[in-house]
Amino acid sequence: MAIITLTTDFGEKDYFAGAVKGAIYTELEQQVRIVDISHSVSPFHISEAAYIIRNAYNSFPKGSIHIIGIDSEFTPENKHLAVLLDEHYFICANNGILSLLASEIKPAKIVEINIHDKLQSNFPVLDVFVKVASHLARGGTLEVIGKSINEIKYLKEFEPIINTDKNQIVGHVIYIDNYGNVITNISRKLFDQVGKGRKFKLSARMVGFENIHESYSGWINFEQEREKRGVEDGKKLALFNSAGYIELAIYKSNPSTVGSASTLFGLELRDTVTINFQ
Amino acid sequence: MAIITLTTDFGEKDYFAGAVKGAIYTELEQQVRIVDISHSVSPFHISEAAYIIRNAYNSFPKGSIHIIGIDSEFTPENKHLAVLLDEHYFICANNGILSLLASEIKPAKIVEINIHDKLQSNFPVLDVFVKVASHLARGGTLEVIGKSINEIKYLKEFEPIINTDKNQIVGHVIYIDNYGNVITNISRKLFDQVGKGRKFKLSARMVGFENIHESYSGWINFEQEREKRGVEDGKKLALFNSAGYIELAIYKSNPSTVGSASTLFGLELRDTVTINFQ
Amino acid sequence: MAIITLTTDFGEKDYFAGAVKGAIYTELEQQVRIVDISHSVSPFHISEAAYIIRNAYNSFPKGSIHIIGIDSEFTPENKHLAVLLDEHYFICANNGILSLLASEIKPAKIVEINIHDKLQSNFPVLDVFVKVASHLARGGTLEVIGKSINEIKYLKEFEPIINTDKNQIVGHVIYIDNYGNVITNISRKLFDQVGKGRKFKLSARMVGFENIHESYSGWINFEQEREKRGVEDGKKLALFNSAGYIELAIYKSNPSTVGSASTLFGLELRDTVTINFQ
Repeated sequence: MAIITLTTDFGEKDYFAGAVKGAIYTELEQQVRIVDISHSVSPFHISEAAYIIRNAYNSFPKGSIHIIGIDSEFTPENKHLAVLLDEHYFICANNGILSLLASEIKPAKIVEINIHDKLQSNFPVLDVFVKVASHLARGGTLEVIGKSINEIKYLKEFEPIINTDKNQIVGHVIYIDNYGNVITNISRKLFDQVGKGRKFKLSARMVGFENIHESYSGWINFEQEREKRGVEDGKKLALFNSAGYIELAIYKSNPSTVGSASTLFGLELRDTVTINFQ
Repeated sequence: MAIITLTTDFGEKDYFAGAVKGAIYTELEQQVRIVDISHSVSPFHISEAAYIIRNAYNSFPKGSIHIIGIDSEFTPENKHLAVLLDEHYFICANNGILSLLASEIKPAKIVEINIHDKLQSNFPVLDVFVKVASHLARGGTLEVIGKSINEIKYLKEFEPIINTDKNQIVGHVIYIDNYGNVITNISRKLFDQVGKGRKFKLSARMVGFENIHESYSGWINFEQEREKRGVEDGKKLALFNSAGYIELAIYKSNPSTVGSASTLFGLELRDTVTINFQ
Repeated sequence: MAIITLTTDFGEKDYFAGAVKGAIYTELEQQVRIVDISHSVSPFHISEAAYIIRNAYNSFPKGSIHIIGIDSEFTPENKHLAVLLDEHYFICANNGILSLLASEIKPAKIVEINIHDKLQSNFPVLDVFVKVASHLARGGTLEVIGKSINEIKYLKEFEPIINTDKNQIVGHVIYIDNYGNVITNISRKLFDQVGKGRKFKLSARMVGFENIHESYSGWINFEQEREKRGVEDGKKLALFNSAGYIELAIYKSNPSTVGSASTLFGLELRDTVTINFQ
């Protein structure tokens, strides 16, 4: 059975996601499983969508088909793409999101979808993306629904900068999660490559860290009696998160009550995070 | 495999939708596919629910069963209905929502559900609607679970008014979507019928439009160089949306940052939208 | 086909729930059905999660597997459990939630999961809980993935107190639902046991009730003409809700417009609700 996932900025309330699911079941009946990854991407927020799909897709079986419904209106400057990347299919607009997904793994094949003459709508995910996904789910090839291209629109903002002395990384906040934790674009790999085990100071606005933990509770000394340790909830920490990025967090924070890393550190999307190595 | 969809005001958090899904799987096991259309309808908001289900249902295969869980407590004034309309089944309370769904297409059959003597609860979607949906999913007939009726409760608010000179349409805002765009109850069909191609001015509070586009980017002249066109994001426009209604929008708006059509035009549900033809 | 449900505090936006679903489908392919119960539990809110899962699980078929992804980071003080209770499987951290689920029904078997040496991550639901759920879905036994234990972490807050004269119950608010209605931890069973049919006064802050209805509309006299009854929407009432608890409600309230029981009565989680019997 084919798997088709949905990552969109449609929200939880509107008819959009429901209509798309209905159209897929109408096309494929018993042969498909639809999985919602997220419909709560901020409207038109390409880098946020990229962070979500990049960290979800590879848990799915190879051959899965991922529809990305962000900023997908078809225009002369925003063509539609179908892509084979890391043995997964992605269907999206050529708005830069593919460059964010493909930053580490080169796509095996990219086609510009050219079935639009048969369709007409201002709801392209429903009309175009569902047709393409259904075609792929039936085992169809990319060549049938598009023409092969090599150049895609490139979004390069949000890559960390390393200074010439190689003792500083300047990154940015790329995502705030459900717990209000702050995710940077500095990966463990980059941190290790530049840092080479040196001591460091991570700074972001008024907050600083000299350790990056392996887990949210990595800084707790569980050997000590609980009463000697003090109350841990609400302590600040930096860690390598499950996506492989440096994350600034509050231990067991609840954004709607006690506040979160984002609100307490005053950090928002695109804010700067600097690591200075000794 | 039968398809049962859910459109409710249960919200995303509570146990209600989960319990309903569990009950359907307990009834039907392998024979059913459950699809969430929306659980985020505003509480008790019948016209909002009608807008959502009306624009989602017909993407689903014929024969699908649509549960509408809005204002469904069973009382002497709020009986339960099961309906065959446009070859789809709908299960809902007789609270007026069916009159909104059936405004263009006459139901082939309406029954008032009469299996309540066997059930007792204050969670009618879980107890009554699931039983009825499961009965229909197994191929059962409407007659077995209800008695045929012809009269349903009618909600007539929210229909546009045309003046006697036939040069003015006065409509209303019926929905604000996830992007903050403002959807009116003036359909393309009505606009064409009354307007007959004449020039017009659409007015809503402080905002006015003299064009209605076919898509969100329909007003952009892509032939011009990008730098000559200026920055398009944030421009206001009117368009015929994918549901066939006139929608007032901000190009690529994000309600939580730059604002949206709703906030920037000051338009809310039920506000008036007027079109004057020359 | 096995059923695996998900109840988490992951939220609707992040990649967490999507990745977990992908991992389950990778493990089990055609053999499983995944059902979202809720991803909108307040972060780290164990009693809220307990209320949700307790009222949803038993609508599912016997043998269903319920993953509870709340406060699940693996530490020396927060081991992982797999439990057979009421013929359902639950996979959760030993953080007290099981004591809330098992308050009325004793678990048939509890094991402390011990497969962590083969896995390493700071996303335990993705790595550990999915492996355990998949093992159980394939018909595997609890003994293979854990060692049997008898003692679990106990959370005892939130149980109603009965005075020595047996004429007073002091309970608490344990949940606010999507409609803003206020759910107490006083069950119908306890109310009947202590009250024995006596008259009573229920008090919570400034609000008082002398009747507890069987439904939201239970207080309306439908025999009277509608115009003689007055407008019912917005009236306050107490009822036994579908979960079997006393709930304080506003008839047809909409929290985002007219307000709700929670806002209008000034009642929040953990506030006291007192019933005095004559």
